Amino acid sequence: MIRVVVPATVPVSALPRALELYRELVEETRTETGCISYELLQRADDPTRLLLVEEWESRAHLDAHTRTPHFVRLVALLDEVEHAEPAVIYSKVL
Amino acid sequence: MIRVVVPATVPVSALPRALELYRELVEETRTETGCISYELLQRADDPTRLLLVEEWESRAHLDAHTRTPHFVRLVALLDEVEHAEPAVIYSKVL
Repeated sequence: MIRVVVPATVPVSALPRALELYRELVEETRTETGCISYELLQRADDPTRLLLVEEWESRAHLDAHTRTPHFVRLVALLDEVEHAEPAVIYSKVL
Repeated sequence: MIRVVVPATVPVSALPRALELYRELVEETRTETGCISYELLQRADDPTRLLLVEEWESRAHLDAHTRTPHFVRLVALLDEVEHAEPAVIYSKVL
């Protein structure tokens, strides 16, 4: 199993639009094979700072996810309203 | 419910010691009231970069956690072998 963390920063004015896109991304992604969890978090001290936290059965499932039509479409739209840092892949140690 | 994310960097030479301390911290913390999950992740591309990912029923439960003897003792010992960034508190949006 692998974890993926993707920090993103969204201007306040673009938050409603970004959350709308994330909602669609989350709903579609959770139906994908191998998706264990896929959640969007928001910093308590700064609502413009979001964190996508994902858990996948394998790297292959994650890679397949990034090739799905909804991922490609929605990430392109999100890129117009947010600055996302590169995804970081983790494994669980404890 | 709240989430807490704590990034930390550990020199390779100190990893065994840090993981030993984290193991104790994780085992003790998971028995605490209000602790939903408490996991240590390690970056796939850089084993010196760790990430503690926590979920608590409330801020009060988290605050109580930081006052427990094991937390105080183990974090002090971890501080000797790692550089931890400040904990960041999130709420789940989606």
